[in-house]
Amino acid sequence: MKTNLGRFFEDYTLGQTIHHAVPRTLAEGERALYHALYPARHALYSSDDFATHCGLEGSPLDDLIAFHTVFGKTVPDISLNAVANLGYADGRWLAPVYPGDTLRSQSTVIGLKQNSNGQSGVVYVRTTGINQRDEAVLDYVRWVMVRKLRDTPAPETHIPDLPDVVTPNRLVIPEGLDFTQYDFTLAGEPHRWSDYTINEQIDHIDGVTISEAEHMLATRLWQNTAKVHFDATNRDDGRRLIYGGHIISLARALSFNGLANAQMIVALNAGAHANPCFAGDTVRAWSQVLDRADTDAPGVGAIRLRLVAVKHGAKPFALRADDGKYDPSVLLDLDYWALIPK
Amino acid sequence: MKTNLGRFFEDYTLGQTIHHAVPRTLAEGERALYHALYPARHALYSSDDFATHCGLEGSPLDDLIAFHTVFGKTVPDISLNAVANLGYADGRWLAPVYPGDTLRSQSTVIGLKQNSNGQSGVVYVRTTGINQRDEAVLDYVRWVMVRKLRDTPAPETHIPDLPDVVTPNRLVIPEGLDFTQYDFTLAGEPHRWSDYTINEQIDHIDGVTISEAEHMLATRLWQNTAKVHFDATNRDDGRRLIYGGHIISLARALSFNGLANAQMIVALNAGAHANPCFAGDTVRAWSQVLDRADTDAPGVGAIRLRLVAVKHGAKPFALRADDGKYDPSVLLDLDYWALIPK
Amino acid sequence: MKTNLGRFFEDYTLGQTIHHAVPRTLAEGERALYHALYPARHALYSSDDFATHCGLEGSPLDDLIAFHTVFGKTVPDISLNAVANLGYADGRWLAPVYPGDTLRSQSTVIGLKQNSNGQSGVVYVRTTGINQRDEAVLDYVRWVMVRKLRDTPAPETHIPDLPDVVTPNRLVIPEGLDFTQYDFTLAGEPHRWSDYTINEQIDHIDGVTISEAEHMLATRLWQNTAKVHFDATNRDDGRRLIYGGHIISLARALSFNGLANAQMIVALNAGAHANPCFAGDTVRAWSQVLDRADTDAPGVGAIRLRLVAVKHGAKPFALRADDGKYDPSVLLDLDYWALIPK
Repeated sequence: MKTNLGRFFEDYTLGQTIHHAVPRTLAEGERALYHALYPARHALYSSDDFATHCGLEGSPLDDLIAFHTVFGKTVPDISLNAVANLGYADGRWLAPVYPGDTLRSQSTVIGLKQNSNGQSGVVYVRTTGINQRDEAVLDYVRWVMVRKLRDTPAPETHIPDLPDVVTPNRLVIPEGLDFTQYDFTLAGEPHRWSDYTINEQIDHIDGVTISEAEHMLATRLWQNTAKVHFDATNRDDGRRLIYGGHIISLARALSFNGLANAQMIVALNAGAHANPCFAGDTVRAWSQVLDRADTDAPGVGAIRLRLVAVKHGAKPFALRADDGKYDPSVLLDLDYWALIPK
Repeated sequence: MKTNLGRFFEDYTLGQTIHHAVPRTLAEGERALYHALYPARHALYSSDDFATHCGLEGSPLDDLIAFHTVFGKTVPDISLNAVANLGYADGRWLAPVYPGDTLRSQSTVIGLKQNSNGQSGVVYVRTTGINQRDEAVLDYVRWVMVRKLRDTPAPETHIPDLPDVVTPNRLVIPEGLDFTQYDFTLAGEPHRWSDYTINEQIDHIDGVTISEAEHMLATRLWQNTAKVHFDATNRDDGRRLIYGGHIISLARALSFNGLANAQMIVALNAGAHANPCFAGDTVRAWSQVLDRADTDAPGVGAIRLRLVAVKHGAKPFALRADDGKYDPSVLLDLDYWALIPK
Repeated sequence: MKTNLGRFFEDYTLGQTIHHAVPRTLAEGERALYHALYPARHALYSSDDFATHCGLEGSPLDDLIAFHTVFGKTVPDISLNAVANLGYADGRWLAPVYPGDTLRSQSTVIGLKQNSNGQSGVVYVRTTGINQRDEAVLDYVRWVMVRKLRDTPAPETHIPDLPDVVTPNRLVIPEGLDFTQYDFTLAGEPHRWSDYTINEQIDHIDGVTISEAEHMLATRLWQNTAKVHFDATNRDDGRRLIYGGHIISLARALSFNGLANAQMIVALNAGAHANPCFAGDTVRAWSQVLDRADTDAPGVGAIRLRLVAVKHGAKPFALRADDGKYDPSVLLDLDYWALIPK
């Protein structure tokens, strides 16, 4: 049999490293498509001129382009038979990705826990994205529930010790980044680091109705091969489940309105795809300031944000019901650090 | 409040200059998407080789890519609360935009007129697109009807004096442009400047049925944030109003068939979005030669064209009814100057 | 009349050469769009790094990008009035196309046969794609049935002598290609030339449901102007016929799963668009190994493959009924040579 049916729970062993296939050179085409697929307007990722005035060598590709590309490569090895994408932790962007860079991914199994029903188990992997100079550009943990195929003995349970949040001292600031000459007019909003208060909530107002073609173009662009996103025969109703990362990018782009200066994503503390999303849904977003931290880079502060994507019709700042479960209108609950001018 | 709700009529003052946010570096990706979104075939914008044989340094990005990019940046400041986009005048392309160029926009308020109902008013702005070398690449006037939010006194009425047409002596010919070695075979049609007669009408034959995904990809690509184009919850029928500029690009691309040699757009004399367009509509186009003029550049003539976009089913060369109103099948009535080999 | 209505059968003469219009510079944008439109994952076309390790100067554009671009240019001259695209033969890729290359096309009429009804005829053309250095990059024969407009005498029948298959000695191996250092892990599968046996069949498993927007974006990207793909008013049911080349690219991309190392397409032996395809159809693919051949290039073998695209619901390895006719579920039957590491 020459085709890949994906790995099952019993195919993973603790400490195993998987080198994912199909390295990818990213360039101006991926940047243009990102702008066509999402209402992305953060100036640092839109203008070479703006980025060089911030001390970078040019405009990097959106941090989420790096994330989706690295993630996409793991799909055939990690999540082809996944029942659910359960969570993210300890994610850090380690170096900007520029047009012309080539990324590949590798993952190490850092935790395993078979479910009591013996039908599936949770696999924890730390995935690293690596560029053509063998530099790590991104590193994160995710855990997924994977089906079991064969009746094998359960592996020893090992649940990794994961931080709830990336502590500010571990944030990696891109070399040369300097916000002392930052142009707030060109960036689109006057609000700086000190203007945001902890617990402040921001409604990003705008909404985008998702079409079937758009989410498939996006997901395919990252060479993500999960069938559920592309094959209408997978469900009785013919709908294709939208890749959770599509909602991350959409919500992050919508958050420009109110967070135009939260330019660079440097850490992913946690994330949950709370409910599935389908074509025809109109997505809105709100944010909450969770924390602020100083950095050593000139003029650069860090802001920890909760980014929540909801479906149209959600109550203002909808998140969880009294029982602690996500409100049915919530699509995404993401916790990240961004860099913002002081 | 950190989010931008847009400006209202009372927020504009005569002479005020607005520096629009989010500069944008345009490159080969935007060119490729333009070819995917529109049936664009003008050789000068398709082939570096063809363009260098015409004396340029390479193939510029389509003149309408420059227009949409510059226009898109103005939306959050000018037309977020616009009731209607009323007109264009005195538009001139001042320098080609090449892959790698970064554009920003600024607008000056050159006219104001509050409507008699006190609920809205007309704002006239002159918008300039500027590249990374601080050179103006495009300059045009547009006027929009904007809602009033507060009960403020009406400003003094000032209606700018605008030319009906850009006179040929004001057309800016790109430096080095030379059509004496023009290859009509590679360009696709034999018709030159002298083959077109004033008042001649050309039916461009082909039609394109618009899909929801395509017009959203296009509009988003120009970082145009007007909600009506993206958010299906804005209208009871769930349809999204298609960005008028999408119809301009579509009609211009369709006009290749009959006007393949009308290569470069150098002036926008006037324009009206006569009726709204929605996904599912099939768009066709026709042109009329309004004028011809000579230029100083070798082998280069100028042709003034009316470009009309209509919905499928329109009568041949449909434009206006007897009462002077646009026929309901007419989507766009655009008056422009193009450069064409003599 | 300035518009092009296309040529009719009586407009072709044996030996006639047609220089097709609109040269096209292809770059990173077209590559990115290819990845958004098709689940393309062959490593040689995804990563500059991988390609240079295989002895090339960088990652070429997908061989089918070259094919579609060269083919698209022929449409206004060859198939605007075609009733059917009947076949392909003797196609060879002669040099890789890299970002920045400019392609144009020319076709020579090598055969003519008027149908007995006098209403149409078959036109055989040999089409060559040529780059900016006047090097041929692709060469193939196709024949189409074209309508007759005028009651002219039938031309003398001439049916060209075409090979059933490109013999291995005629395959052109890209200069410098060397698979001796080939990285099977990065490529995604361990299967090499010697692992495939003649007549072996491979089910590529995955399916993609086509949306109207995606096939129009793809077809337009190649400047293919055939009305039937874009204009919903052409058919009573409002559906747009999907460009046959879209199915070729889709099936080839799906064939990664099982044929990840069949990297470069070097010959098109034959091809039939067996049945029409429309938006909403879910496309699957299977392959059969037809032959294997050695090459002079280090580590490089050649594999001859039948690639069959079918609609969801097709029987396993569906191809023809007992009467020799294609099964109604079959969309494409393509016979090609690819290069694969030994």
